Amino acid sequence: MRDIGIGIIGGGYMGKAHAVAMSAVGPVFETALRPKLVMVCATSDASAERYRAAYGFARATSDWRTLVADPEVEAIVIASPQSTHREIAEAAFARGLPVFCEKPLGENAADSAAMVMAAEAANAINMTGFNYVRTPATQEAIRLVRSGALGRITWFRGEHTEDFLSDPDAPANWRTEGRASGTMGDLAPHPINCALALMGPIKSLMAQIETVHDTRPGPDGPVQVTNDDHAQMMLRFANGVMGQLYVSRTATGRKMGYGYEIHGTKGAIRFDQEDQNALHVYYADGPEAGRGFTKILTGPAHPNYAAFCQGPGHGTGYQDQIIIEARDFLHAIETNTNIFPTFRDGMEVNRVVEAAWTSSDQRQWVDL
Amino acid sequence: MRDIGIGIIGGGYMGKAHAVAMSAVGPVFETALRPKLVMVCATSDASAERYRAAYGFARATSDWRTLVADPEVEAIVIASPQSTHREIAEAAFARGLPVFCEKPLGENAADSAAMVMAAEAANAINMTGFNYVRTPATQEAIRLVRSGALGRITWFRGEHTEDFLSDPDAPANWRTEGRASGTMGDLAPHPINCALALMGPIKSLMAQIETVHDTRPGPDGPVQVTNDDHAQMMLRFANGVMGQLYVSRTATGRKMGYGYEIHGTKGAIRFDQEDQNALHVYYADGPEAGRGFTKILTGPAHPNYAAFCQGPGHGTGYQDQIIIEARDFLHAIETNTNIFPTFRDGMEVNRVVEAAWTSSDQRQWVDL
Amino acid sequence: MRDIGIGIIGGGYMGKAHAVAMSAVGPVFETALRPKLVMVCATSDASAERYRAAYGFARATSDWRTLVADPEVEAIVIASPQSTHREIAEAAFARGLPVFCEKPLGENAADSAAMVMAAEAANAINMTGFNYVRTPATQEAIRLVRSGALGRITWFRGEHTEDFLSDPDAPANWRTEGRASGTMGDLAPHPINCALALMGPIKSLMAQIETVHDTRPGPDGPVQVTNDDHAQMMLRFANGVMGQLYVSRTATGRKMGYGYEIHGTKGAIRFDQEDQNALHVYYADGPEAGRGFTKILTGPAHPNYAAFCQGPGHGTGYQDQIIIEARDFLHAIETNTNIFPTFRDGMEVNRVVEAAWTSSDQRQWVDL
Amino acid sequence: MRDIGIGIIGGGYMGKAHAVAMSAVGPVFETALRPKLVMVCATSDASAERYRAAYGFARATSDWRTLVADPEVEAIVIASPQSTHREIAEAAFARGLPVFCEKPLGENAADSAAMVMAAEAANAINMTGFNYVRTPATQEAIRLVRSGALGRITWFRGEHTEDFLSDPDAPANWRTEGRASGTMGDLAPHPINCALALMGPIKSLMAQIETVHDTRPGPDGPVQVTNDDHAQMMLRFANGVMGQLYVSRTATGRKMGYGYEIHGTKGAIRFDQEDQNALHVYYADGPEAGRGFTKILTGPAHPNYAAFCQGPGHGTGYQDQIIIEARDFLHAIETNTNIFPTFRDGMEVNRVVEAAWTSSDQRQWVDL
Ligand SMILES: NC(=O)C1=CN([C@@H]2O[C@H](COP(=O)(O)OP(=O)(O)OC[C@H]3O[C@@H](n4cnc5c(N)ncnc54)[C@H](O)[C@@H]3O)[C@@H](O)[C@H]2O)C=CC1
Ligand SMILES: NC(=O)C1=CN([C@@H]2O[C@H](COP(=O)(O)OP(=O)(O)OC[C@H]3O[C@@H](n4cnc5c(N)ncnc54)[C@H](O)[C@@H]3O)[C@@H](O)[C@H]2O)C=CC1
Ligand SMILES: NC(=O)C1=CN([C@@H]2O[C@H](COP(=O)(O)OP(=O)(O)OC[C@H]3O[C@@H](n4cnc5c(N)ncnc54)[C@H](O)[C@@H]3O)[C@@H](O)[C@H]2O)C=CC1
Ligand SMILES: NC(=O)C1=CN([C@@H]2O[C@H](COP(=O)(O)OP(=O)(O)OC[C@H]3O[C@@H](n4cnc5c(N)ncnc54)[C@H](O)[C@@H]3O)[C@@H](O)[C@H]2O)C=CC1
Repeated sequence: MRDIGIGIIGGGYMGKAHAVAMSAVGPVFETALRPKLVMVCATSDASAERYRAAYGFARATSDWRTLVADPEVEAIVIASPQSTHREIAEAAFARGLPVFCEKPLGENAADSAAMVMAAEAANAINMTGFNYVRTPATQEAIRLVRSGALGRITWFRGEHTEDFLSDPDAPANWRTEGRASGTMGDLAPHPINCALALMGPIKSLMAQIETVHDTRPGPDGPVQVTNDDHAQMMLRFANGVMGQLYVSRTATGRKMGYGYEIHGTKGAIRFDQEDQNALHVYYADGPEAGRGFTKILTGPAHPNYAAFCQGPGHGTGYQDQIIIEARDFLHAIETNTNIFPTFRDGMEVNRVVEAAWTSSDQRQWVDL
Repeated sequence: MRDIGIGIIGGGYMGKAHAVAMSAVGPVFETALRPKLVMVCATSDASAERYRAAYGFARATSDWRTLVADPEVEAIVIASPQSTHREIAEAAFARGLPVFCEKPLGENAADSAAMVMAAEAANAINMTGFNYVRTPATQEAIRLVRSGALGRITWFRGEHTEDFLSDPDAPANWRTEGRASGTMGDLAPHPINCALALMGPIKSLMAQIETVHDTRPGPDGPVQVTNDDHAQMMLRFANGVMGQLYVSRTATGRKMGYGYEIHGTKGAIRFDQEDQNALHVYYADGPEAGRGFTKILTGPAHPNYAAFCQGPGHGTGYQDQIIIEARDFLHAIETNTNIFPTFRDGMEVNRVVEAAWTSSDQRQWVDL
Repeated sequence: MRDIGIGIIGGGYMGKAHAVAMSAVGPVFETALRPKLVMVCATSDASAERYRAAYGFARATSDWRTLVADPEVEAIVIASPQSTHREIAEAAFARGLPVFCEKPLGENAADSAAMVMAAEAANAINMTGFNYVRTPATQEAIRLVRSGALGRITWFRGEHTEDFLSDPDAPANWRTEGRASGTMGDLAPHPINCALALMGPIKSLMAQIETVHDTRPGPDGPVQVTNDDHAQMMLRFANGVMGQLYVSRTATGRKMGYGYEIHGTKGAIRFDQEDQNALHVYYADGPEAGRGFTKILTGPAHPNYAAFCQGPGHGTGYQDQIIIEARDFLHAIETNTNIFPTFRDGMEVNRVVEAAWTSSDQRQWVDL
Repeated sequence: MRDIGIGIIGGGYMGKAHAVAMSAVGPVFETALRPKLVMVCATSDASAERYRAAYGFARATSDWRTLVADPEVEAIVIASPQSTHREIAEAAFARGLPVFCEKPLGENAADSAAMVMAAEAANAINMTGFNYVRTPATQEAIRLVRSGALGRITWFRGEHTEDFLSDPDAPANWRTEGRASGTMGDLAPHPINCALALMGPIKSLMAQIETVHDTRPGPDGPVQVTNDDHAQMMLRFANGVMGQLYVSRTATGRKMGYGYEIHGTKGAIRFDQEDQNALHVYYADGPEAGRGFTKILTGPAHPNYAAFCQGPGHGTGYQDQIIIEARDFLHAIETNTNIFPTFRDGMEVNRVVEAAWTSSDQRQWVDL
């Protein structure tokens, strides 16, 4: 067991989550590497200092280069906006540091490809922040699919739906500007990563991406919305299976609608993140009179659960996902072996997103 | 109140359901017209006689022309396979009789168009058997959407999923032969009709239709499956809204997965026929802390319910849908005014099905 | 197959349900005996005539003695208020007629005992109208419990909750007067019958019965409520198992909360009539990671379902329960063999109700 | 912001949970007091040292007196078995230290009373570990009940059901010995505390407590079980409301069945900890056609949520409850003001448990 100095860029939504995770992961998972919160970085000195004090970092900076260069920083977490990911990661890899980067990896596939190259050139540990794929329920789903328990898979439906912009009177802000902040840029990466984890690579797709509310109230009248509100796509996976995906930030009533449905010749799975501790599994065996979806509550018998609680059904939550990520990141560093999802996995997601844009723009199927 | 002589062609799954409905509809809805079961028709004299006795018809025949020509038969229910619908309907209209025809209306859009022409030429009452659209829950959903309670609609997802052919070892039979018996031919009409009822006409679509299990065991080895197991499509409705549809007979675990999800700017609806007496409605108003989907149990306050029971939550079932159809059919005859869904509505469904085939074959968007 | 003349006393809520059921049961279940609606009886000539026309009876009367004495009436359904049940049943048995009587059997245990004696003296078919116990789901639950699939039963919880009087401003009416119309008199019989069917006889009980809203608005100011709004009891079954029951008409939000929960050493069952086509079953076998409650949708593999629909998950409703009752009643007549629940079963329920009153009044355990 | 030295007695199930919570609470809630893990205590030096290293304490001891006396220890968490709680707490209060003690407070009401006296004599902060009452959903439920939003409350049902001993072949162990480890001793405190928080004091109760499996396999044959497997009770609250409670460790299929159901004249609430991020609320207003239970997903609009995640529906889990407890404990210390649930609240729970035993033994109602 030894300490490891952590630097986090960003102290907002995800910066906080990672700071908490790095504080909790040691006692939760009894990790070999024990994080020390060395430095936090934010856009201004004042905010950086505020985060330092709030989360318990030793030092603060408003210059990420300072953080990346700091000798006590031994691993980096990038939790700043997507536009900053590439440059920071490249600098960190130049120093040979392990990097955990929030999703989406790069602003686009080209950036992500460069980041993958940098990581691999440096032979440095790299990981992308697809937290939802790490819950006990989804890890169990992946295990079931791969085990063959559901037979040959015949269909996949994925979803990530929220409703934070379903109100047309919600004002324009940074979220309504620029592709990287749209639904395909911001939400789609999670369910795409999930689809890839459950089903393997996508061969071709046909997408429909649209802005539902073209303008939104601004301080001086209507402002143009420059990115997408929701998108749907039909998929053909490399294994031949047909599937589909829907992502939305205008899905009225949905708060955390990350879900999937998988049909196999011997069974099926249904999952909805809004009840993240339940996995619904059906097996097409035994007498008809006894068949149905079994609602399995996650517990110590499932992946990534026991460290949080010895009792089944007691449940894990959002913050716990980030703690699991921290465990995986530390374990990858300790063993010098990358763990899914890596930067390469993050790049695959960007590629799918771009193919979807092409398909939607051209109104035709696109191969990946 | 007066009697009306009913002739039913077919005594199988749906023939029975309509015979029961015609027996029950009078006391249930206190209809002005009271059905008398005059004659039933089936392929053989023996089976026709068996149905006669079982369901309480006065007479039986194995020749539908005899039934159509019978002077005591005043209205016709066609519950025989789709290949027979057109000819029977045309003959009935030639006599000026009202016709209720099971879905899908014709085997294809051309047949359906001819049937619509015949009906309209004869100025005869005509109705298509889309029973699921008549449940209290779905009628209430239609009412809510049309009332504007959900605001402007922004997305629609429809589904009809069952699993009676999810097992690849299920033997080949008539269901695995011919487009009319495939998923698009047999199941899709229901949710397409539902989509049209809730959302209005479809402007264009992009479909992916496939056979999951290409061969199935036959008596002498593997037999080729000549129709589709499942299909998905992306939709653009005439009102500009984006949507999607999925139909499957290989949806492992799903028994009666007729469902829909509708997003609006002010609210949302979710429905699943597997819990047919519940409608889930969300309103984006009031304090955030109190928002969520409300599970409304159908009751006397909803359409088509009170005649079955004075208590809310007591529930209606499949057979009750057919009784509601019978009420509507009798009422249309009594008032000489067609009631949704008519043959024209049935034909619209066929047109969508054919557009989907074209789209899937050509792998491109198709306008309707 | 032969006709059987039916006389129904009462044309209200349940009189109608039984008239419909007698019209539908023949084609639904292909019964050997085919009901003919001979005569209906109601309090006034006018209402009786209205019911006759509405439901399709041949004749009407306002004097149940006329109905009972009618030579064409071969079987009787009593669907009038509980105060009338005994006298009518006794008269019918005096003629040797089979009698189906709505729940509760008698107004009290003494009346019920007299009715049982009359039935048994006449050696006549007798049945009590506990319809909820006949649904496919509950019949399957009974089957599972008796089969030993759940192991030794260790606990039972029953419930019948509605909210038609949860509003304290709901006006006083006949329902708020007299024990027979209170919750113990009116609602409790259903779940008590269910408990007895699932668990066998009750040995002792401890009850708490109360009126939640002591007065209610009347035309001239507050009116005293003279019966109970809700009641709870702890039970000891003859088989040694501990259990409990709750009944209420002030259960805000509950519409048809007839439910039960059963723990066994090898499994468990949960059921709620508000989703009457689903039975939730748990088995304590197989790997922990796969355990959970399986939501089984009723279908042709379950009791009393296939006659309504060939497809699983298509669902039965309230009216179908009464059709199943009619089938059982006709079958009992045809085979001259009583079918559960008989008058004796109805009397057992009255005895439990009275024991509960004693217990609640004396605030102590009471043996049955 | 200043550091505060924490000593934890016990390093097992709950000792770990509190160690994690003390590590995470600072960044999560940006507390004014920042915990330093000074010392952990366990039964042996070896286990204490193991916990020290695993959870990141500075020092370890096998003698809780050493811990309590340590000058750097400024606050105490007792997470050792109930038999140890009193002595440790008294010693800590003797030093004037704030004490957080796991439930049940004392082994019995007398112990708890002594602990309350010691706390109050020392004028020291004291808190009991009823974590389930602190979830966002249950805090919101308490808020709703107290706000009058549900009108006058008319009924309460509480439950805490698990199934870790439902298998009769599960071997005898410490859990099957001694009242304090039985269901009333170990599980009942949680739902009793919940009932008191939601409904106020209990005036009288009638209980039935029993051992379902009298013997269990031991190393040398059957061993007598000396405590209770499940218990049910009927309650009368001081506010006049009737209620009930069920607790079980043999509730086959239930993993974390901490739940409640509350009826009021204007609304109702249903909650089940197995889906801890959902609260089901019904309001008896608006048109009948729109009424039903609303499934509210917890989010930043609810108590104790926002610090974990800015997104609604993202969910909290078991460990988060302990972090909330830590926040409350630190806040109580900082402001020198006790926060519910205190030792007095813990003692109230013991008193209810003892009244239940008396009632069950004497088979009669007991006043509190
Ligand atoms: N995995 C998940 O569930 C989520 C992931 N994200 C991702 O996390 C990343 C951060 O998003 P949020 O935390 O929501 O944003 P935020 O706006 O809450 O916080 C961004 C932080 O980055 C800092 N920052 C911005 N530009 C910077 C620069 N040039 N140098 C240093 N610091 C800079 C800001 O000061 C701020 O502290 C994004 O890539 C986003 O896509 C966001 C939310 C959820
Ligand atoms: N609305 C719904 O939920 C459903 C609708 N259907 C539709 O109902 C129709 C009938 O299907 P099922 O009842 O399932 O079929 P089935 O195979 O159970 O019964 C078909 C009946 O038609 C009779 N028949 C066949 N050819 C005939 C002919 N040339 N002349 C006279 N009688 C003939 C047969 O003797 C048999 O009685 C189809 O159009 C089907 O698509 C079927 C099932 C469900
Ligand atoms: N199984 C179930 O789910 C239900 C059972 N019931 C039971 O059914 C019975 C009838 O209740 P409802 O139908 O709700 O009552 P209702 O008030 O709707 O109808 C009662 C009928 O009985 C007739 N009636 C009253 N006194 C009569 C008399 N002396 N002679 C002849 N006819 C008379 C009335 O004219 C009326 O037609 C009761 O025993 C009730 O407990 C009621 C509702 C549900
Ligand atoms: N709030 C909740 O959800 C739960 C509360 N509990 C409560 O937490 C307490 C601890 O239970 P668990 O953690 O399950 O037990 P455990 O058996 O997992 O751990 C007990 C710990 O106490 C230590 N210990 C025992 N006797 C000691 C002594 N005399 N001096 C110092 N250390 C000693 C042991 O070494 C061990 O580390 C109990 O009061 C229990 O009722 C337990 C589980 C859940």
